Amino acid sequence: MRVAFQGEAGAYSEEAIYGHFGAVETLPCETFDDVFAAVAAGDADSGLIPIENSLAGSIHQNYDLLLQNQLWITGEYFLRVRHCLIALPGVKRSEIRRVISHPQALGQCAGYLRSMEGVKAEAAYDTAGSAKLLKASGERTCAVIASRRAAEIYGMDVLDDGIEDNSENYTRFLAIAVKPVTPQADAKTSIVFVLNNQPGALFKALSVFALREIDLTKIESRPLAGKPWEYLFYIDLLGSAENDTVVRRALDHLNEYATMLRVLGSYPRCKTT
Amino acid sequence: MRVAFQGEAGAYSEEAIYGHFGAVETLPCETFDDVFAAVAAGDADSGLIPIENSLAGSIHQNYDLLLQNQLWITGEYFLRVRHCLIALPGVKRSEIRRVISHPQALGQCAGYLRSMEGVKAEAAYDTAGSAKLLKASGERTCAVIASRRAAEIYGMDVLDDGIEDNSENYTRFLAIAVKPVTPQADAKTSIVFVLNNQPGALFKALSVFALREIDLTKIESRPLAGKPWEYLFYIDLLGSAENDTVVRRALDHLNEYATMLRVLGSYPRCKTT
Repeated sequence: MRVAFQGEAGAYSEEAIYGHFGAVETLPCETFDDVFAAVAAGDADSGLIPIENSLAGSIHQNYDLLLQNQLWITGEYFLRVRHCLIALPGVKRSEIRRVISHPQALGQCAGYLRSMEGVKAEAAYDTAGSAKLLKASGERTCAVIASRRAAEIYGMDVLDDGIEDNSENYTRFLAIAVKPVTPQADAKTSIVFVLNNQPGALFKALSVFALREIDLTKIESRPLAGKPWEYLFYIDLLGSAENDTVVRRALDHLNEYATMLRVLGSYPRCKTT
Repeated sequence: MRVAFQGEAGAYSEEAIYGHFGAVETLPCETFDDVFAAVAAGDADSGLIPIENSLAGSIHQNYDLLLQNQLWITGEYFLRVRHCLIALPGVKRSEIRRVISHPQALGQCAGYLRSMEGVKAEAAYDTAGSAKLLKASGERTCAVIASRRAAEIYGMDVLDDGIEDNSENYTRFLAIAVKPVTPQADAKTSIVFVLNNQPGALFKALSVFALREIDLTKIESRPLAGKPWEYLFYIDLLGSAENDTVVRRALDHLNEYATMLRVLGSYPRCKTT
């Protein structure tokens, strides 16, 4: 089995693949678009994309790509993101003058970085990619923020571990594939829909779930291209669109209000902790 | 009067300031944090921040900054974003090999850029800043995407105008200040709240508006730091928190469910077109 992800070897997405799928082959891709394309073309059996971080929020590009592509969500995985300060072998923490990483990783370690006097933070394309670049450059006054796996892969030293300011740092990933799955018990379902732009429209839409005591775990709104200030709504709910009668009825009911409704997938729920 | 904005002279935010406030003094700031800080410290009488683009969606950092700071929203403004292809004086379109701009501007002109054969797009910090940098570098095979005003300010040529793929390209800006305003008729109110993480909680919260026929124009969710998969909800609604009894009652009602509720401001509504 081969699973596509965005980033370089050692990326957090790759760590999530091993957590979710076990020991599979991984396919690094430059962009999220490339991950969707690799799965659609059959170059990978599945893809794993980050959809939300508990500190930084949603990765909106992937919400848009779920809509633009015709793939199914087949699973979810929660990864505890644990950042490391990584440098070339033998370098001491006191020698560091620059720290490079993805802006989100720099932001999550802002307090730690402020405590390193005389050190400048610099944005880079991604976390593991920064480690790869540093290894190639051989720059001894530079460190990167990335995962422990990235340090191991590129033969670097971990100077400090768990340097994120807030330890409640989790990323939720979604597995995507060409064919849907049929989860048995404890399922989650992701949908996207558009409503007529009328007062109370969202309230009515949520009523189809609330009145049936269906638990919503996430709601996200995204702009509807070409219609300023109208929105697509993405909702995650507990239950299966195929196996749970109450969910099926709620979706039929929502279809009465929605001008567009698409089930992105029902899949086994992953417990947060 | 002095109004702070993020970016260089010629930025879309500065254009929005002139549209909203008229001929005032402007204060360019490096970051959105700096805009909030300048207003809080009294270095500027007001700030104008982008909060949402009709194609790209919300600027989440500014939602977070509204919560972290104690400023009031005092107005809103809609700017039609019209991108220009800009180069050094005398340069022909056929000479261009690189186009530099903010990633969002590049994305909004992706179709146009694909039609320019043999041209590479490169991400930069901001739109007007790219024009400033190009002017300084004197590079004749390079163009930038920015506003017509940016071209004028830096003495550059506009090679092409309105190059965005989708003409329904608007950005909504919010004016922020130390003191709140009291709008008379046709007001909008922005609030932020947190709910107990219970099934149906959002449905109940929306009911306080729907049952009073209060029109919601926007809902946005952001992660609650330190509580993974719990959310802050930001809502914009029509009416004034101070002058409209029905809105005041709805907010009192919401307070019965919410564990936190803050009115970010009531302000005169700006018509979209």
